[in-house]
This record gives sequence, structure tokens and C-alpha cells, in this order.
Amino acid sequence: MKVIVLSSGGVDSTTALAMAVKKYGNENVISLSVFYGQKHDREMQAAENVAKYYGTEHIKMDMSPIFDYSDCSLLSHSQREIPKESYADQIKKTKGAPVSTYVPFRNGLFLSAAACAALSKGCSEIYYGAHSDDSAGNAYPDCSPEFNEAMNKAIYEGSGKQLVIKAPFVNMNKADVVKIGLDMGVPYELTWSCYEGGDKPCGMCGTCIDRRAAFEKNGAKDPLEEIV
Amino acid sequence: MKVIVLSSGGVDSTTALAMAVKKYGNENVISLSVFYGQKHDREMQAAENVAKYYGTEHIKMDMSPIFDYSDCSLLSHSQREIPKESYADQIKKTKGAPVSTYVPFRNGLFLSAAACAALSKGCSEIYYGAHSDDSAGNAYPDCSPEFNEAMNKAIYEGSGKQLVIKAPFVNMNKADVVKIGLDMGVPYELTWSCYEGGDKPCGMCGTCIDRRAAFEKNGAKDPLEEIV
Repeated sequence: MKVIVLSSGGVDSTTALAMAVKKYGNENVISLSVFYGQKHDREMQAAENVAKYYGTEHIKMDMSPIFDYSDCSLLSHSQREIPKESYADQIKKTKGAPVSTYVPFRNGLFLSAAACAALSKGCSEIYYGAHSDDSAGNAYPDCSPEFNEAMNKAIYEGSGKQLVIKAPFVNMNKADVVKIGLDMGVPYELTWSCYEGGDKPCGMCGTCIDRRAAFEKNGAKDPLEEIV
Repeated sequence: MKVIVLSSGGVDSTTALAMAVKKYGNENVISLSVFYGQKHDREMQAAENVAKYYGTEHIKMDMSPIFDYSDCSLLSHSQREIPKESYADQIKKTKGAPVSTYVPFRNGLFLSAAACAALSKGCSEIYYGAHSDDSAGNAYPDCSPEFNEAMNKAIYEGSGKQLVIKAPFVNMNKADVVKIGLDMGVPYELTWSCYEGGDKPCGMCGTCIDRRAAFEKNGAKDPLEEIV
């Protein structure tokens, strides 16, 4: 059986990719990464390096024009600054609305694009790395179990019952994901999470804070911090 | 309230656009048409002409790279011929599988792209023109009520409960759609349905056959047949 994995180059999707490779073998796994107009391409490069490491076929797509009208702070054309605080602090301020780094319906779009490619390539499953920390407080509603369940049904029905989504971490937190990845020897030194695109992670954006905490909860050090 | 309408330039989506304009006024309606790599651009031109007629803001997107790996017979890189027979005859042969003109998960992708744009543009609803003739016999599974319901839930949840789909024809057939459109004076002479891209409709592909039948059932003549 062949599967496709949405690979952003970050911790969660790289762990999902590792799981898929372990289960099906790298020759049956396709990784897909999508550029959506973010302020840097470090994630895209990381996704490519991870694909090389695991020896999977790698597909890149550019969907940035779709977000031409969005003012999400991650996008290169946006004047909004990326918040330098944890998601927990951000959602106290947004009061139930998505955070400023929510790219509108991005995961729905990416999963749909993955479905298009999966059906063309003869894949039966789409893996993606959404987890419960991302959907907490509605920060990223397109990471929630409710979204995942509905999107899975939409892809199953809309594909003529040929394709399903696997979101193995949807009810886990990021520390759980890192634990699984550490046990599998995932090469986290190749990944990139920071929303900024500098030489090394900024350490202050929501995703840097979350990433560091996830490693610390496992009594581990992020290998990226040692290298950069 | 603002809405976005998926507009292919064909009969169904143009009727959906007319309904949205009638309900909300053209200043509150955005039409969106997507090029996906089909063998001609007559539909794209038709969608633009319809948008000009109704005076709506019109957005065009090119998503053709996403279908690079598909061998759907509608695509310019496919060697497969577009069937010259009715959908009813085609689904007798496919025995429950989608027809060769099914573009893999196209409607899911288009609705997701519409959701991205809708959230960026402050729209609360996405209109699209799926109807029961298209989903009959699983010809186009991404037109079925089951797909529509799940996709609506996915967009509602994934948008943070900001956005819903309106598929007013999902339980109607194409003749019902044309009846509504004729009553509203929809300019069907501006639309294009034929899968081939000649000077005039081929009259023999599935969509030409369906279109003609829908007008005939209403005791009307397709204005496009008189003009071309």
C-alpha cells in the first residue's frame, strides 16, 4: 500500500513521516510539502532534507497565490509581526478566535491537495501531524479532532471511498509526539519549526517555545539547539 | 454579508452565482474560477464574462500543477480521450468507479481554496453548484450530498466556525437548476459546458448531452445553440 505524507519540515510532520516509513517502507511513501507564501523557505528546505534522509519521493507545490488576500502574520506580504509569545498567552488575548499565525484553512487546502495527488499516485492514506496543542483554545481550528474527522469523511466520500486521512497525533500533545519520534530516532536536527527565517531559531515565537517545551518534557535537548 | 461563489462558467455555477447576486447584491459577491489544466480555457473565459455581466469581483487561480500526476481525460497532458457518450452510459461501464472525466478530489480542492480566499476577504458563505445528476452512480463522488455535508462540516470547524458552504442544488437535478435559472433570466448564452474547446459545443460529450436534456425538459432551447 502507498501513502502520502504532508511534510512541513517541522517536528510533528517529520515524526508522522517516520511512522509511515516504518510501517510501509520508504518506497511506498511520498512526502508532499507546500509553499504558501511564508516569510522564509527554511521549512521547505528542511522537508526536502528529511525526504532525502528517508529516501522518499518528494513533491513540492507552490500555493502562495491562494493566500494573496490574507493578512496572516506568517506571510511575506503581511505587515503584521509574528508574536513573540507562547500560544497559551496568545489565546488569552484572542478569546476564542484563531491566532495571528493561523493561515486561513491552510490544513484543509493542504489535505485537499494531498488528496488530489494521492488519488493520482495510487495512494490509499494521507498522513498528517496535527496534534492537540495546536488546536487548544481554537488557536488553529484546522488541527482539531472535529475538523480532522469531518475532513476525513469529506476525502473518503469525495474520492469515491478510495482514500482516508491518518492523523495519529490528533489526540496527543507535542511532547507525546516528540517521545514517539525520539524512540524512533527521528533526525530532528534536520527539521525546522521557527516562524522566523534566520540562521538559527529565534527562540521566542510560539512554535519555538512549544518545541523547546516538548523536548524538555521528555528530558531531552533539541538537537537543533546544539547544532546552530 | 459577503459570499464567494465557485464559478466554472457552466450552467450550474452560473445559476448559483445568479442566486447569490439576487440575495446579497453584486457588491457583496465574489466569483472565483480555477484553472486546473483542462484542454481549453473556454470555461475560464465564460466565467469572466459572467462576472462582468453581473458586476462581481472576480478572482482567478491556477491550480494546474496539483493535477500534474493525474491522467483524467479532461487534462491537457492526458492521452485519454474524452468519452462521447452520456454519463448514464459511462457509469454502466465504470460499475461504481468515477468516470474518466472525474478530476481527483477537484471539488474538495476548489472548496478549500474558496475557503482560504473567503476567510481572507471576510465572506461568510461559499456557494457552489453541485447537483444530483453529477453524483448519480458515483460518476462524480465530490458532488454527492454526503461529500457536501462532510466538507461543509470540515470548513465550518476548520475555519473556527466562521464559514459555511451553500450547495442549493445538491438534491436537485440539472433540469431543476435550469428551471430556476430561466426564471431568473440567467444569461446562459455566456456560459460554456462542453469538455472540448472548439468554436461551438461538440454536442456529444457527457456534459453537452446533459445540458441539452436539461433545457429540453424545461421546453426551452439552449441559447448557446442558437448563437454558435
